[in-house]
Amino acid sequence: MSENHPKILVINCGSSSIKFELFQMPNSLSIASGMVERIGAASGGLLCLKTLGVNLSDSVATANHQEAFQLILKTLICPEYNILQNLDEIGGVGHRVVHGGEDYHQSMVVDSSVISVIEKNCELAPLHNSHNLMGILEVQRLMPLTGQVAVFDTAFHQSLPPAAYLYGLPREFYDKHRIRRYGFHGTSHRYVATRAMKLLKRSYINTNVITCHLGNGASICAIERGRSVDTSMGFTPLEGLIMGTRCGDIDPSIIPYLEERGYKSQELLEILNKKSGLLGLSKISNDLRDLEAAVSNGDRYAIEALDAYAHQIRKYIGAYVANLVKTDVLVFTGGIGQHGTKMRERICRRLESLGIMMDYTKNIQNASREGSVSHDYSPVTILVIPTNEELQIARDTYQLLYAHSEVE
Amino acid sequence: MSENHPKILVINCGSSSIKFELFQMPNSLSIASGMVERIGAASGGLLCLKTLGVNLSDSVATANHQEAFQLILKTLICPEYNILQNLDEIGGVGHRVVHGGEDYHQSMVVDSSVISVIEKNCELAPLHNSHNLMGILEVQRLMPLTGQVAVFDTAFHQSLPPAAYLYGLPREFYDKHRIRRYGFHGTSHRYVATRAMKLLKRSYINTNVITCHLGNGASICAIERGRSVDTSMGFTPLEGLIMGTRCGDIDPSIIPYLEERGYKSQELLEILNKKSGLLGLSKISNDLRDLEAAVSNGDRYAIEALDAYAHQIRKYIGAYVANLVKTDVLVFTGGIGQHGTKMRERICRRLESLGIMMDYTKNIQNASREGSVSHDYSPVTILVIPTNEELQIARDTYQLLYAHSEVE
Repeated sequence: MSENHPKILVINCGSSSIKFELFQMPNSLSIASGMVERIGAASGGLLCLKTLGVNLSDSVATANHQEAFQLILKTLICPEYNILQNLDEIGGVGHRVVHGGEDYHQSMVVDSSVISVIEKNCELAPLHNSHNLMGILEVQRLMPLTGQVAVFDTAFHQSLPPAAYLYGLPREFYDKHRIRRYGFHGTSHRYVATRAMKLLKRSYINTNVITCHLGNGASICAIERGRSVDTSMGFTPLEGLIMGTRCGDIDPSIIPYLEERGYKSQELLEILNKKSGLLGLSKISNDLRDLEAAVSNGDRYAIEALDAYAHQIRKYIGAYVANLVKTDVLVFTGGIGQHGTKMRERICRRLESLGIMMDYTKNIQNASREGSVSHDYSPVTILVIPTNEELQIARDTYQLLYAHSEVE
Repeated sequence: MSENHPKILVINCGSSSIKFELFQMPNSLSIASGMVERIGAASGGLLCLKTLGVNLSDSVATANHQEAFQLILKTLICPEYNILQNLDEIGGVGHRVVHGGEDYHQSMVVDSSVISVIEKNCELAPLHNSHNLMGILEVQRLMPLTGQVAVFDTAFHQSLPPAAYLYGLPREFYDKHRIRRYGFHGTSHRYVATRAMKLLKRSYINTNVITCHLGNGASICAIERGRSVDTSMGFTPLEGLIMGTRCGDIDPSIIPYLEERGYKSQELLEILNKKSGLLGLSKISNDLRDLEAAVSNGDRYAIEALDAYAHQIRKYIGAYVANLVKTDVLVFTGGIGQHGTKMRERICRRLESLGIMMDYTKNIQNASREGSVSHDYSPVTILVIPTNEELQIARDTYQLLYAHSEVE
């Protein structure tokens, strides 16, 4: 291992899976990536690995996250795959951590105080933060000398002004229960916006960007001079856009209304998160490809679901264009943003009055590739940019552990 | 009474008050107006009346809505006030009815089927519809030969397309529980939009309008060629803008989150409707005048409350500009819209990229009067228009009972 080209391991530790990717930095070379799935499940456990000359998907049973971690590390040093000779070669580990609360507006080198803040913020994201934290503690146990960095989904949005992060609720809810807009997907929004600057040879100093991360979860972000000034996800990832299975914005009265009709609070939360969105509206699928196929067959529910989906995205784009004063770039990313050619067109068909002028031919030709899909004369440049949160985490980790600079 | 100039009585029957206004139509002359307040209260009951040469506010006790109605009718024919000789002169009664569900897209002459639909829709607006209905039944009892018309707050928004009225929820919630965006304030939005056409000598055929009704309740409406195509209030009047005491849009997860922390569903609904919005954020007042005064004194909570209020309005204006393709007119109405000079400026200060260019001098000079407050070169004309829902109800009543034409 060279101090000049350290290898950074990126970990995304979820409730039943751990994703990993190993990068060589600062040249951003992905050396290996993979995932352990269905941790703790009686059957169906899986280890996936991609590296030079290897593309495997093996059945494995892992009883818990500890076992899964050991499996990942063993895999990385397995001579057969020729990835690492030994674990000392890993120069740093970067973790995706969902919730940094109001404590962190950037990525942090992990120490005991960072660990206790992540713990404190488990209240705000109980399912996510506790597993993210477990990953950090496990790496600490197995590789005690390796530096770790926590990269928060919320950190990028800590620059929101009060007008954007305050709900119209009694102050006490904010003061006592920390209820405010936090926003998520920050690592993705930051990555694609930075990438857009590079592609367009523009500087954040004089550029405003709206980034649409449209995956199974989805959010939009308004970025003014490099700082997030508004975003559609809120206190939790449920708010904002219609998503694969999440409802997005609804009238808050609907919840008490349904509770009075016999629904339990936790049951509703499950429905709003897992059975709503495109899936709930279409009664078919949360997968855009299935729905585009159904639209081609004239299925009314599918048509209405995709129309409502696009309508809501246009509302947020318009809302952010209004508040940004001047908008220079619109970025599409995430599974649907990158590959949903028809959906991008559906969204942009009504945005011309905002100066957002898609070149529909380019949009089809470009399909899933990185690049511009707007007319040359469009005041707002429309870009498709594949996101890469893992690389952003690797970069932050490298910068904090090796370049000793603040993360931009 | 002349068939050619019938007098129309307009009734807005609420839970503890009845407002009334008597018009001569079709010349829209207001003959008398007033209100009975605190119906059923042990003390503090009030009868207010304004008519030519009279401006009284008398203490009266009314035990129930029946008594209040009788008092109003007695007042109207009281020789002292010289309004009517007898009740036969009333040529029609128009009622504000909050919820017409999906049943009515326009005002309706009251008959037994209309009454049963209003009854059916009590489920959707229990506090309002039942009192509105009580008013209709009481007039029917006291003046059985007089024609009545029901004017629904929701009717104007029945033209919303599915993309705008569907939430990202399971279809069953719509099919079984009728959960969708209905929108409210329709009579006001329709009135000011029609008035805008007249003032600007424009036709609906080629004009799109965004109307901002900013009162203690507040909503915004996107009107394409005379038809409402989107609006910010939803299943109930709680959704959308930050209001005097209502929260507007929040992350729906907040409700279960607070329920887990001991709040009861009905208690939360009360807080979100009565103790949130400008009042909850500022901890001072729901009255814009109090808050502007506090802002002048540098009160941070008041500043943040008004900033958040304006921010949310700009988001909706931007959202509707995006979906309308082309926007010609922006109308401000309601107490805050009409009189809140500084608030109008606060809202419009960041809307220039949308072609909404306020003339800030004109805005101050115009203050509360009807007229334009935009620059002559502004692509979007900004108007201040005092609303007059009572007159709109009188017009609908006249048209349906006398002109025998569909209400426009």
